[in-house]
Amino acid sequence: MKLLIVGGVAGGASAAARGRRLSEQAEIVLFEKGPYISYANCGLPYYIGHVIEDRNKLLVFTPEQMKKRFNIDVRTSTEVLRIERQEKRVEVKKIDTGELYMESYDKLILSPGAEPIKPLIPGIDGTKVMTLRSVQDMDKIRVAVDAGARKVTVIGGGYIGLEMVDNLSNFGLEIHLVEMLPRIMPLIDPEIAFIVQEHIKSRGVQLHLGKPVQGFKEAEGRLVVRLHRYEEIECNFAVLSVGVKPSTSLAVKAGLDIGPTGGIKVDDYMRTSDPDIYAVGDAVEVKDFITSRPALIPLAGLANRQGRIAADNVFGRASKFRGAQGTVIVKVFDLTVASTGASEIKLKEAGIAYEKIYLHPTNHAQFYPGASDIRFKLLYSPEDGRILGAQIVGVDGVDKRVDVIAMAIQAGMTVFDLEECELAYAPQLGAAKDPVNMAGFVASNILKGDCNTLFASDVPVDEQNPNILVLDVRTSKEYQQGTVPGAVNIPLDELRARIGELPKDKKIYCFCRAGLRSYIANRILKQNGLEVYNISGGYLTFCSSRPEMAYCDEIVPKKVK
Amino acid sequence: MKLLIVGGVAGGASAAARGRRLSEQAEIVLFEKGPYISYANCGLPYYIGHVIEDRNKLLVFTPEQMKKRFNIDVRTSTEVLRIERQEKRVEVKKIDTGELYMESYDKLILSPGAEPIKPLIPGIDGTKVMTLRSVQDMDKIRVAVDAGARKVTVIGGGYIGLEMVDNLSNFGLEIHLVEMLPRIMPLIDPEIAFIVQEHIKSRGVQLHLGKPVQGFKEAEGRLVVRLHRYEEIECNFAVLSVGVKPSTSLAVKAGLDIGPTGGIKVDDYMRTSDPDIYAVGDAVEVKDFITSRPALIPLAGLANRQGRIAADNVFGRASKFRGAQGTVIVKVFDLTVASTGASEIKLKEAGIAYEKIYLHPTNHAQFYPGASDIRFKLLYSPEDGRILGAQIVGVDGVDKRVDVIAMAIQAGMTVFDLEECELAYAPQLGAAKDPVNMAGFVASNILKGDCNTLFASDVPVDEQNPNILVLDVRTSKEYQQGTVPGAVNIPLDELRARIGELPKDKKIYCFCRAGLRSYIANRILKQNGLEVYNISGGYLTFCSSRPEMAYCDEIVPKKVK
Repeated sequence: MKLLIVGGVAGGASAAARGRRLSEQAEIVLFEKGPYISYANCGLPYYIGHVIEDRNKLLVFTPEQMKKRFNIDVRTSTEVLRIERQEKRVEVKKIDTGELYMESYDKLILSPGAEPIKPLIPGIDGTKVMTLRSVQDMDKIRVAVDAGARKVTVIGGGYIGLEMVDNLSNFGLEIHLVEMLPRIMPLIDPEIAFIVQEHIKSRGVQLHLGKPVQGFKEAEGRLVVRLHRYEEIECNFAVLSVGVKPSTSLAVKAGLDIGPTGGIKVDDYMRTSDPDIYAVGDAVEVKDFITSRPALIPLAGLANRQGRIAADNVFGRASKFRGAQGTVIVKVFDLTVASTGASEIKLKEAGIAYEKIYLHPTNHAQFYPGASDIRFKLLYSPEDGRILGAQIVGVDGVDKRVDVIAMAIQAGMTVFDLEECELAYAPQLGAAKDPVNMAGFVASNILKGDCNTLFASDVPVDEQNPNILVLDVRTSKEYQQGTVPGAVNIPLDELRARIGELPKDKKIYCFCRAGLRSYIANRILKQNGLEVYNISGGYLTFCSSRPEMAYCDEIVPKKVK
Repeated sequence: MKLLIVGGVAGGASAAARGRRLSEQAEIVLFEKGPYISYANCGLPYYIGHVIEDRNKLLVFTPEQMKKRFNIDVRTSTEVLRIERQEKRVEVKKIDTGELYMESYDKLILSPGAEPIKPLIPGIDGTKVMTLRSVQDMDKIRVAVDAGARKVTVIGGGYIGLEMVDNLSNFGLEIHLVEMLPRIMPLIDPEIAFIVQEHIKSRGVQLHLGKPVQGFKEAEGRLVVRLHRYEEIECNFAVLSVGVKPSTSLAVKAGLDIGPTGGIKVDDYMRTSDPDIYAVGDAVEVKDFITSRPALIPLAGLANRQGRIAADNVFGRASKFRGAQGTVIVKVFDLTVASTGASEIKLKEAGIAYEKIYLHPTNHAQFYPGASDIRFKLLYSPEDGRILGAQIVGVDGVDKRVDVIAMAIQAGMTVFDLEECELAYAPQLGAAKDPVNMAGFVASNILKGDCNTLFASDVPVDEQNPNILVLDVRTSKEYQQGTVPGAVNIPLDELRARIGELPKDKKIYCFCRAGLRSYIANRILKQNGLEVYNISGGYLTFCSSRPEMAYCDEIVPKKVK
């Protein structure tokens, strides 16, 4: 068996190592266009931010180590130019010398990765408009930072953009974050993204939302980023992080099938339309685990797994990829933001029926010092309660809860299963009723019909809607500090006594701070024959969903006093 | 409906609140023997340790609050003396006045909890031998600490004992931990407990293992704890934490069925042998989720859930308890120790076939600063790979991994599913191949026959066993710092070149530090026709499993340099 692998980072390196473990006899050649293989892509922003100080730590395996340990013939600075599928060989170019040669294969694994999207904007190819994908990209940005940059523009409010903002902030720079859409983080839902926006604004980052970049120009050693409507940002340099696209040129030239998303089309065994060619990693189109639609989900974990699966199949072991949930997490300043499964936006696009809830628990028992807020959105099927997705924001304990939900999604579990989860509880690490249990309780109560639920978006802007009474069951002190426009206040603990004050002929939209007190209020009112609805997530979710109507300074999770 | 509830802490308070949410009309009376209801039992050690400074924070709901919010008739300092099942009423005693009265019920929920086990040891009832179960117990111990105690003996090395050690250490006391068994933490396996032992020893705690207390006596205001063999500890006071037993006297007097473990017998609906009486919490016997055997698993989360389930059933909603996994976690000094599902000991006792692996990953990507070690034991079925249990020790990220495994157990997932988990990865929070994925890989490799595995216990004490060669594939530097007695050293990266040095007629027991390099070595040797076995968990697990044979100072997880 002679296996050629194109691309030496996550997917390719994993395939090579797995291949060798499965066969000592195989000839395995790994081609990498760049000078480095198997580097820690996800660490690049942190080297720029001087959080990771030792650059060598990012280089997980050198070519020499891959040779020694796995007997892999690693050829860096070597580009595979084309595939001759009939002859089962590739044409290869040594980048340093320009030398060309052919290399034959029995099986070929493509792991070319993805490349930064560079929109057709005047000036985008200037040296002061940088992207971050490779170690060389990282080195360039770090040099620019270390040269004493005072002002930097980050273009694109996705994960990489936010990691850049977070790392650049270590140097006290003036940071501008420009995003074409009216909000950051396009892969999560806007009311969750709003929480993150508020946080980064509070840290002095200047947000330019809904502003596509019109052009770049250099003047007197500075970069001018021109935004919509004559607005300009003059800065030392810009980091362009508006997403990546699959690197498919080699596959396209070879006539391999490309999927509707633009990624290389593969079957469940990671095999392309040519049975002797596999493809893995950011370049391939995967099946979305929730929607079953083709999707591009460029994540290191998936690339590693696919590399392993492709190698298994190359060496005669049937091994299948189950599709991708797209579990992602990013830390930006004090907040961690995570998501798994489908967002509400994606479910809508896919036409999948869903219900949603919001809750605002603390990461661990409140009586133990240092507890902090969590904002938790759960999406599930109204038919059977199957969990479809979650988005979680908080200071601590976010990664744990998103991982627990990721497991639940993988296993096809329901909100009823979440009620029953037995998670580890010690006061500094959790709660006897963990946020995940609470999510299960809230959603189950809705599915069982115990609590009619509606959302911030259902609250009429017109405060005078005669058929609706908006009821705030928080304390009068909380009420006075800000409420939903037009809401009347009856604190929960007075509700039974004052129930006569409520009209029998109106719908009552009930809320509290987070949703727990209003749930109890709902139960009281419903059992007393009133038509009552709970505004999911209470005032906190209302304020992040409809910031034009109400604002509270508790939206952003923080340590509880 | 008139519902009486006996016991106002976790299970009882949950049942009361849930009952009210289900029925505004019901009359609900909650009896509690002590002065407090709904307090945070798990917080008690931390108030003693001055970690929690505000005592009121431990009192989650006062009787007044329960009345206001849930319209519950709470009667504290009130003991239910007996149940007249025929008449469906209970006899009640006001503790302060001695007044007796009868109270009738339609349904009765018992949540009497558990009480500290007090072995029949001379002097155990002295005032300087304290237990920790209630708020009053806590107050007493805190007074004793704050009075300037210099030396304290903790008896019992279980969870509460360790939390006491941890909290007492905040005052620079001399702490003695006495345990009857030859090791601490009887609910987890000894080689994992050994790691914790080493850690607490390194923090100056004096361990007295395998030493049952023979007696207590007071002398000159001090307590003398007499151990086995004339050994005595003179101290200011002792905390006795040798476990709890279900409080069943009321149920026993009423003739309700008691299970073989000594807990109140209930069905899946939390109903006792009397259809109008339910029982929940630490007093009941539950079904072990893994072994299906009856078990006592006194945990707050379970009590809460059972209270909710009992209330559901009382109010006409069929609601079932699925059994208990027993997920537990404890923090002691720098370490967090957690467990879910069955231990190896428990599986052996239950006669359930199992396989096990050990791994030693870091909590997050090693290239990001602050990574720390994790020690991870996974138990699974050799037939289908179903996960049976896990034990995890580390500095950070332990709670997350045990929760992920808890979900996998709940869902009936296998080690093959663990390979596929899509967990959140950012460099400061995880790894592209998370420890959970790694556990899946290791176990799957074994089940697929890629790697023959054996354990520290299989290594012969006699170094001269002529049929076995113990092979250390770490670097020669690592080898020189300590190895398995009799092991020969061929570093992994030299193995292909030096394979001729290995005997074809011997079994090769191969190991490295943690198991990854030796797995690669196994693949190399196996494919070259040698009979090779991997010692699971490598030198680290060897040293904690057989400390009499080898020692290394890396056993205890710490931050990676």
